[in-house]
Amino acid sequence: MRMAELSERSGVPIATIKWWRRQGLLPPGQRTAPNQAEYDSSHLARLRLLSVLRDLVDLPTATIAEIVAALDDDDAPLHEVVGTAHGALAHGEGGSGRALAFVDELLDEHDWQVATDAPARHDLARTIDALHGFGREVTVDGLRPHVEAAERVAEAEVEATPIDRDRDDVVTDVVVGTILYDQVLSALRRLAHEHASARRWRGQ
Amino acid sequence: MRMAELSERSGVPIATIKWWRRQGLLPPGQRTAPNQAEYDSSHLARLRLLSVLRDLVDLPTATIAEIVAALDDDDAPLHEVVGTAHGALAHGEGGSGRALAFVDELLDEHDWQVATDAPARHDLARTIDALHGFGREVTVDGLRPHVEAAERVAEAEVEATPIDRDRDDVVTDVVVGTILYDQVLSALRRLAHEHASARRWRGQ
Repeated sequence: MRMAELSERSGVPIATIKWWRRQGLLPPGQRTAPNQAEYDSSHLARLRLLSVLRDLVDLPTATIAEIVAALDDDDAPLHEVVGTAHGALAHGEGGSGRALAFVDELLDEHDWQVATDAPARHDLARTIDALHGFGREVTVDGLRPHVEAAERVAEAEVEATPIDRDRDDVVTDVVVGTILYDQVLSALRRLAHEHASARRWRGQ
Repeated sequence: MRMAELSERSGVPIATIKWWRRQGLLPPGQRTAPNQAEYDSSHLARLRLLSVLRDLVDLPTATIAEIVAALDDDDAPLHEVVGTAHGALAHGEGGSGRALAFVDELLDEHDWQVATDAPARHDLARTIDALHGFGREVTVDGLRPHVEAAERVAEAEVEATPIDRDRDDVVTDVVVGTILYDQVLSALRRLAHEHASARRWRGQ
């Protein structure tokens, strides 16, 4: 299809498509004339991914570029691409030595194999520091519901991802699932909170 | 304490404290001379809250102001303040009629009592629309692990919040817990994913 149709079918304005092309986020089409190119369903799929990452997850362009680069690297093993998507969701380095040591202890206790440089370790440690700052104690036992909940949903998500398909589809699926199910769980937790706390606190 | 000490003990620069004062996010101190005021531990606690909301959760000032206004409204019932904190975590209106109807069905199935205007309903619906856009089917059964996980952590969190204390402390605690445990769960899910997916996909 030509760019006009690509824009119409994806709902992405032509100016945005051109900008993403220039940024290298969208691969080039098949050139059919000096000033004309043909696009296919892979371009449509990529535009859908870019739109979600930008509009729903509010990721900055630089982060989207990192994810796309990992997607486009055919040599990257799948779990590395997932690692990149995780990195994109992370807030950066940080966490006190005490909190990082607690995260180690927590992962050991549950026998989780996680790279020592996984960005989520730092996110968890920073959040634990913040909870300490408010005088909230955080213990391995106190976090058991969270660890078990996280384990359960992660296993279900990994199981639900079909891997006997084209690599590109699998990779996009895994990245999208990783990011979107983070939002599913967050929204559900807030709904569950409302249900649980209205019951407990109504009238207080 | 004077403002210099407040700054030193909170780690918040004096310029930032003054700016938050002018925005009404930090209540005034006790005036002891025309150009001098005394601050106490409640100001320290507020600065800690403001720092976390800005730096760790990356909330815009307008959203922080909404949360603080709810905190400072002594007439607001606790579960309403929690609702405001949830609103602050939400991404706004949206979701197709089909996705919103699915969210209704999901909540009914699990017998959750949630206000029809709860912002997390829209977040969930928008995310489900995005998953549909990538050809991912979302079913009540497929989301059972997520719903049960969310229910379990929300109940544990609500149970773990002591409510036989000063209202201000309880409210801050509930808001902080609501927001920070969202990050705890998100980080744990990503760690669990790494554990689960490295096992399944290593070498692919």
